[in-house]
Amino acid sequence: MIKVKGIAAFSTTKPLGPFSFERRDPKEHDVVIEIKYCGICHSDIHNVRSEWFPGIYPMVPGHEIAGVVSAVGSKVKKFKVGDHAGVGCFVDSCRECDHCKEGLDQYCLEGNTLTYNAKDKEGNVTYGGYSNIIVVDENYTLKIPQSIPLDKAAPLLCAGITLYSPLMHWRVGPGKKVGIMGLGGLGHMGVKIARALGAEVFVLSHSDKKQEDALKMGAHHFIATKDESVFKQYAGKFDLIINTVSSHELNMSNYFNLLKLDGTLVSVGAPEKPLTIHPFPLIIMRRNYAGSVIGSIKETQEMLDFCAKHNITPEIELITPEQINVAYERVIQSDVRYRFVIDISKI
Amino acid sequence: MIKVKGIAAFSTTKPLGPFSFERRDPKEHDVVIEIKYCGICHSDIHNVRSEWFPGIYPMVPGHEIAGVVSAVGSKVKKFKVGDHAGVGCFVDSCRECDHCKEGLDQYCLEGNTLTYNAKDKEGNVTYGGYSNIIVVDENYTLKIPQSIPLDKAAPLLCAGITLYSPLMHWRVGPGKKVGIMGLGGLGHMGVKIARALGAEVFVLSHSDKKQEDALKMGAHHFIATKDESVFKQYAGKFDLIINTVSSHELNMSNYFNLLKLDGTLVSVGAPEKPLTIHPFPLIIMRRNYAGSVIGSIKETQEMLDFCAKHNITPEIELITPEQINVAYERVIQSDVRYRFVIDISKI
Repeated sequence: MIKVKGIAAFSTTKPLGPFSFERRDPKEHDVVIEIKYCGICHSDIHNVRSEWFPGIYPMVPGHEIAGVVSAVGSKVKKFKVGDHAGVGCFVDSCRECDHCKEGLDQYCLEGNTLTYNAKDKEGNVTYGGYSNIIVVDENYTLKIPQSIPLDKAAPLLCAGITLYSPLMHWRVGPGKKVGIMGLGGLGHMGVKIARALGAEVFVLSHSDKKQEDALKMGAHHFIATKDESVFKQYAGKFDLIINTVSSHELNMSNYFNLLKLDGTLVSVGAPEKPLTIHPFPLIIMRRNYAGSVIGSIKETQEMLDFCAKHNITPEIELITPEQINVAYERVIQSDVRYRFVIDISKI
Repeated sequence: MIKVKGIAAFSTTKPLGPFSFERRDPKEHDVVIEIKYCGICHSDIHNVRSEWFPGIYPMVPGHEIAGVVSAVGSKVKKFKVGDHAGVGCFVDSCRECDHCKEGLDQYCLEGNTLTYNAKDKEGNVTYGGYSNIIVVDENYTLKIPQSIPLDKAAPLLCAGITLYSPLMHWRVGPGKKVGIMGLGGLGHMGVKIARALGAEVFVLSHSDKKQEDALKMGAHHFIATKDESVFKQYAGKFDLIINTVSSHELNMSNYFNLLKLDGTLVSVGAPEKPLTIHPFPLIIMRRNYAGSVIGSIKETQEMLDFCAKHNITPEIELITPEQINVAYERVIQSDVRYRFVIDISKI
């Protein structure tokens, strides 16, 4: 077994703190990664606080993991010691269902093995990236291109792929108008990727506070929605809107009405409470409301290569492990520009 | 001007009664139709009671119109006297917007001219099919194939096309599993058309009262949803579900979970109050919630020809004009199998 130093939540309410545990020795297909950086995703907080389902404690969160390979199992082909490697939201899947066979393992019908707060096929609890070492099957490990600094690579593994996947699935490209609701950790990746895909990119944000940032990141237009007249002004203009705002209080009709005939609004974040939705704006223009979750391993690799090619990296704020609890409060207050990344060397 | 006998609503609350009015003399491209039958659509009641928007009174409802051409304008090419002709939910559109040019005039960007309770391009109030004569531009008039009896043709003009259009748009056919929520005027047309398209057809109805009817109409399976265990049993099975139930009280998560990866649930009826929707079931399997409204004139003609070819007709209950008020109450109680059609000869 490998001794690991981590940061864990011990209950839904106590601050996170140091936690020592062990990981399995590498099996034939395993890669041992010395974690250098781990991003903080809002879902880490939902998990720590058992807001979606009862958590398993102690819980070591973190699924935006970037590091360096320090050992490999005897049959590993994809990686060698010294390679830059990443781990995202899941570390295994059934590999046999129709979706896994089609390369859509994010939608594994048996339920994939989440990187933390879950149990793997042997029944062992999974621990995430707020720790200095992780052991993952090479098939669920990503190659991080050398040109992407490891600290900036980390948030790509969840925030990046969560936006890349729907932008690709709904065929965003030249001639398409794309709206990104919310300019946070997810939204700002959406802006950068949609821009690189050749779309005309609009940021939809409550106030105009983030206008300058949005335009710098590549948005062509910024719409401050607190002035409700904008919903009339831009009605029927958008091919695709991606909603990164996890609020149940949005007036969804306003946003649906921004879509063209056959346009789609995709939610990538789940609010705690349900939304109030009137189907009328969907009916009158055959619009769609859809959801999307992260991306497959294959697509995540594509996304990393795409980001390397287009020099796309997230805007990050590097913190030490001691600052995690303060960072959580700031994430909840939306006071982060635009993703916290933990410097794991300080663990 | 042409003198017309009709049945009108004079306010949101009073019973409908006789109303005499005039229609324009036929212009070059107009068809004069002696109406033989008109279906009663639930939306007639919503309109009469101003439940969606304030109505124009006196209001002559009716947009499921079947009759015989009695005169044609000088330049009419599609119709001659004696032809069977139909009129659906709209009698004109801008003809110039992108959607009209693409043959998607049901989504006219300028708003098409509804068959009743609207104003036409000259500002005249439109009156619907609860009347003995209608005058409509040939481009917005349908040819009713001779093999379809006129009384049974009437409901195809709204109920038929409302189901045909989404079934075609979402590519229903052999190998696809289709669920029809609600077996009423709309739902029973969905069953018949989906069956003829080669799909495996499931009816989702609250109780098992309509099971026998559903199977006779061509459904392969009947699911009584009052036993909630069925939502587990059929989870992830459906390619497409069409919701014809205009209730805001449905547990939509239950229905979304019945869809496969990338499956779609389409609402074709608007409830008065909004639905409560949690995006979680959409997110976890990239599912879609969509809306659809009637169909284009071109598609409506296709649907009529399809129904003629496949011997598809609605189940109707023929009533006299005096029975309209009672029929409305029965529609509200869902006490109709499966569409009321008014015998206009008794007007």
